[in-house]
Amino acid sequence: MTDPEAREKRVLDAVKQRRERVNDAIPEELPITDPERLYEASRYLLDAGGKRLRPTVLLLVAEALADADADDVDYRSFPSLNDSVVDVMAAAVSVEVIQSFTLIHDDIMDDDDLRRGVPAVHREYDLETAILAGDTLYSMAFEIMLETGAPADRTVRALDVLASTCTKICEGQALDVEFETRSEVLPEEYLEMVEHKTAVLYGASACVPALLLGADDETVEQLYGYGIDVGRAFQIQDDVLDLTVPSEQLGKQRGSDLVEGKQTLLTLHARNQGVDVDSLVDAESVEAVTESEIDDAVAELEAAGSIDYARETAADLVESGKDRLQVLPDNEQRYLLEQLADYLIERGY
Amino acid sequence: MTDPEAREKRVLDAVKQRRERVNDAIPEELPITDPERLYEASRYLLDAGGKRLRPTVLLLVAEALADADADDVDYRSFPSLNDSVVDVMAAAVSVEVIQSFTLIHDDIMDDDDLRRGVPAVHREYDLETAILAGDTLYSMAFEIMLETGAPADRTVRALDVLASTCTKICEGQALDVEFETRSEVLPEEYLEMVEHKTAVLYGASACVPALLLGADDETVEQLYGYGIDVGRAFQIQDDVLDLTVPSEQLGKQRGSDLVEGKQTLLTLHARNQGVDVDSLVDAESVEAVTESEIDDAVAELEAAGSIDYARETAADLVESGKDRLQVLPDNEQRYLLEQLADYLIERGY
Repeated sequence: MTDPEAREKRVLDAVKQRRERVNDAIPEELPITDPERLYEASRYLLDAGGKRLRPTVLLLVAEALADADADDVDYRSFPSLNDSVVDVMAAAVSVEVIQSFTLIHDDIMDDDDLRRGVPAVHREYDLETAILAGDTLYSMAFEIMLETGAPADRTVRALDVLASTCTKICEGQALDVEFETRSEVLPEEYLEMVEHKTAVLYGASACVPALLLGADDETVEQLYGYGIDVGRAFQIQDDVLDLTVPSEQLGKQRGSDLVEGKQTLLTLHARNQGVDVDSLVDAESVEAVTESEIDDAVAELEAAGSIDYARETAADLVESGKDRLQVLPDNEQRYLLEQLADYLIERGY
Repeated sequence: MTDPEAREKRVLDAVKQRRERVNDAIPEELPITDPERLYEASRYLLDAGGKRLRPTVLLLVAEALADADADDVDYRSFPSLNDSVVDVMAAAVSVEVIQSFTLIHDDIMDDDDLRRGVPAVHREYDLETAILAGDTLYSMAFEIMLETGAPADRTVRALDVLASTCTKICEGQALDVEFETRSEVLPEEYLEMVEHKTAVLYGASACVPALLLGADDETVEQLYGYGIDVGRAFQIQDDVLDLTVPSEQLGKQRGSDLVEGKQTLLTLHARNQGVDVDSLVDAESVEAVTESEIDDAVAELEAAGSIDYARETAADLVESGKDRLQVLPDNEQRYLLEQLADYLIERGY
């Protein structure tokens, strides 16, 4: 085992290498055609950046299954577990496109102004265009997933995962909105919401390549579970980062979840510890809140042990996810998927 | 050939019979589960009614191909052109669900308050819920289409049609919004917009059963063309009805297209005839317009021959669509599909 910094560099290099390939593929799968304004708006967030973690998971799983490496393979003509080839890059772009669609619509629903340091699509364009851009990405994700060249029976299963994933994301977002107006949310309910809103797309990213390449059902199931565990951990870590990372690095106001009264695993824990969560921040809007007000709120959550609790829960989920990777061949890509899971909860932002 | 009234009754009875079956199937395919508010909102417009023309076209094409009749077959276990059976009702519900999703999002974009005589979903619920309800229907339509039990290769083709149809609907809606701010729109551009916004879903409705049941490519193509022709005619007729049917019957303000500056084939024709279309209605909002103002505008459009021109264009499209039905066996269902095309442009509302 190498030292933590070397490990982190290795996983970050792996992510970067695949991110660049995904970035090259996005305009190939989503060219800007007529009507141009619609397609520009659809591409706006995708072009603004993003870590491409979901497509990277998808590509790494494909590589692990095929015992191949990014350097040696053509993702567009990737060796399946039998004789055929599959365009796993199309599948990778498809899940990123779904992610982008949900961000565009979520930003409208949450009335967020910024995303990835640039204006949200409904701010840069307008409400109508943002709704339509999301809707366009939605169907394009299916069109793209239909073009991997995998045998029809596998394509049907992959589409089934994609469609039910989208439904669950909507259910999760609906619960998230509902929780904002409820005085009590049970931790199980919170975790269910998180699973629906975030983790299912990681689940899909991890299991879709197994489906397309023809892996057995046990492998598909464990990989889905890896994605779910890691996705849950990722969201919990996001909630932690919302409180602990400076606004400039976050690309949005630190502590905005608290200001907006969002329930997270952190606030649930704090409530159980007797913290008056609703009074942690007095400011009524993200624009009005001060850094020192957020500092005080964070100190109180820290004192209640809530930040540690969230970090530990995320760490447990990551361990569970890593265990599931035993279904993969023991190779460098499996190691990277394990490290990626660790990185998701160790990352600074 | 029977007299027009008897013909109309025959086609209306056929539509009604299939509409009832579709209405029964909708709650089976889209049960109200948790989170309930989301699913209630998703079902709201579907439950408010609708003629179910698209699923009726789908079921009639299936019946025509199989030489079967609604009375004699189980749509859930429908005879394919080889030995297998297919749930064509699931496919029928799927296209209606897509239609409902587009209505919910269109009403937000057009800021329409009423739909089918009830409040639009974003009025009855709220913006967030309406966006999410549409998004949920979107993925549910794919989930439902994935469950017809058709062989995987046919399912893939049907999903391909569904996905590209959704993309085209978005493109059409984007053009529609863009046209409202443009001073000149060419008739070809208008027809392209209409085809994308409306006709493609009729095209999908007509060709998907052929794909699922295993018809040959020529049949699939001609049926798609039937849907496109009929869908274009339907939209043109809708534009005519917006001007000629009393508001109570329409379920919304008569002439609202004119008030909102919407370009239609009618206004394009009138403009070419030298009519100052932008000054036809002074009122700035649907709430402010008077019936007599609409009456005067309609009289001017009539004098310019624009209403007749739209009606004739629709009639030509219907004839073209009917010709394409020659690929179907000569049976009662083909006759009903011909009559249905006629009905779409003869209907009062």
